[in-house]
Amino acid sequence: MAYRDLPSPVHVTEVVTRDGFQSLDVFVPTQDKIDLINAFVRAGIRRVEASSFVSPRAVPQLADAAEVVAGIDRSGGVRVACLVPNAKGAERAAAAGIDEMVLLVSTSESHNQTNVNRSVRDSLDGFPAVIDIARAHGTGLHGAIAVAFGCPFEGEVDPERVAEIAAHMAGLGVRSVSLGDTTGMATPPVVSAVCAAIRRQCPGTEITLHFHNTRGIGLANVLNGLQIGITRYESAAGGLGGCPFAPGATGNICTEDLVYLLHELGIETGLDLDALVAIARRIEGILGRPLPGQVMKAGPRLRRQSIDSVRRAVG
Amino acid sequence: MAYRDLPSPVHVTEVVTRDGFQSLDVFVPTQDKIDLINAFVRAGIRRVEASSFVSPRAVPQLADAAEVVAGIDRSGGVRVACLVPNAKGAERAAAAGIDEMVLLVSTSESHNQTNVNRSVRDSLDGFPAVIDIARAHGTGLHGAIAVAFGCPFEGEVDPERVAEIAAHMAGLGVRSVSLGDTTGMATPPVVSAVCAAIRRQCPGTEITLHFHNTRGIGLANVLNGLQIGITRYESAAGGLGGCPFAPGATGNICTEDLVYLLHELGIETGLDLDALVAIARRIEGILGRPLPGQVMKAGPRLRRQSIDSVRRAVG
Repeated sequence: MAYRDLPSPVHVTEVVTRDGFQSLDVFVPTQDKIDLINAFVRAGIRRVEASSFVSPRAVPQLADAAEVVAGIDRSGGVRVACLVPNAKGAERAAAAGIDEMVLLVSTSESHNQTNVNRSVRDSLDGFPAVIDIARAHGTGLHGAIAVAFGCPFEGEVDPERVAEIAAHMAGLGVRSVSLGDTTGMATPPVVSAVCAAIRRQCPGTEITLHFHNTRGIGLANVLNGLQIGITRYESAAGGLGGCPFAPGATGNICTEDLVYLLHELGIETGLDLDALVAIARRIEGILGRPLPGQVMKAGPRLRRQSIDSVRRAVG
Repeated sequence: MAYRDLPSPVHVTEVVTRDGFQSLDVFVPTQDKIDLINAFVRAGIRRVEASSFVSPRAVPQLADAAEVVAGIDRSGGVRVACLVPNAKGAERAAAAGIDEMVLLVSTSESHNQTNVNRSVRDSLDGFPAVIDIARAHGTGLHGAIAVAFGCPFEGEVDPERVAEIAAHMAGLGVRSVSLGDTTGMATPPVVSAVCAAIRRQCPGTEITLHFHNTRGIGLANVLNGLQIGITRYESAAGGLGGCPFAPGATGNICTEDLVYLLHELGIETGLDLDALVAIARRIEGILGRPLPGQVMKAGPRLRRQSIDSVRRAVG
């Protein structure tokens, strides 16, 4: 039984090979990316945001999107989603055989301009061309609304504005959207207001929450999200990622810590937490540095310690 | 208005100079400890766990407890609490003029033995001698129940057992207790069960929650704590501290991240978040290493960024 009537099951999308790797200073070898994604699938992950079909010049870390997709073992039924910024990317993504094209737009002009170098209107106007290509290939569609809970340049974002974008997407047939906490500005009241506005303006749209832990409250936001009935979350193994405005702050919420919380709340995920911890440790090995994930350091809650192993610690 | 009828105000006890400093490899100079506590008081903190009147041989980092207490500016009405393990410590603490003696015991035999080198029964039997000294000096009393949400050696702890200890303390006149999440095993269902048991067995006892972030869910536990009506929390600046069983994992929940969450939930604390961030940065300077706090790195939620400062970051 889930704690206090929280929803169960909950679905976790793993985004580390896209959102975690895109801002690294190093290129993670293609075979490592493939091996990691296949390990996630074996751990029970049923949707991955694997890569991004952006210009390899703009994001060289993800230049191998097609090869990565080709290497994923699809026999277990995982859905492979990728960001697709334009028709050119959509053609590449369709040729690679992905399951879902993710259409990205920011809520604010300044962030959209900084992020994808065009106006919000131009981003929205570009969607139909991508959607046509997706439909022609039978590929699914998913929206991603960035800076959904606040903009680092413009401040508060009107929840109705987020809902208008979701409604616009719904009008184009995109009825599943992620709300991106791009720079860690989500708080329980803000998330609840945005979700309420979307549910009013476009009741048929399914919401996925994509939180960052930039200000330390990512999993408190998840608990609130569960309490308002949201059952889909995106996270990155080890909490990899970051925020260009907050040197040293963490990025995406950590998959293992999220799954630990969900399991402790009595919520089913279909995921093997030990296997997820092993993957996060493997990423530490690949990158040669520690990740911010906590469960990967502390281990399972009921792992017994030997008294001999202890140094004295009062309190 | 607080979000969703959460309680307000909420009271934050700062514990960094005790729980944060006690396990450091270095000795923080006495004047630094005093300056930090006085800065917390100016930031609005109204209760500090300043130090511990344990044997200086056992915890040399806190050997200067009396000097630290003597240096605190009490004119603003801050309550100065210190751990007091026995009658000898109580005499020293009373002479130093603290406001509250904190009586510590673990829920499990193995942890109490490891932590204070005696049985739970011996710890409980030692309380009256301390209480007598406190009463003779008009000093307040507070209980601290360690490993209240699980024991690293014995596993799950029966909530009724925690409540029995709280009831025993109440019988001795100690009607205010902190529940210590010593090794980060607290989860929302476990915390709710323990608080419910205490409320049944000793309805007159006031509960303070002392969470660690060892497994990443410290602030989710706070949100749950608020929802079950708990208004008192203990935390450490910058999230300093640690768990001897989890190298690299964080320790106490971070004061600034906690206060950020509380303020964003519309809860009054009387605290100046900017001032708290400045203190956490000062501790980083004293220790010469980064702390796990996030708000101290990311800054206030609505701090505006200049677009020029940005490197491109999709999603």
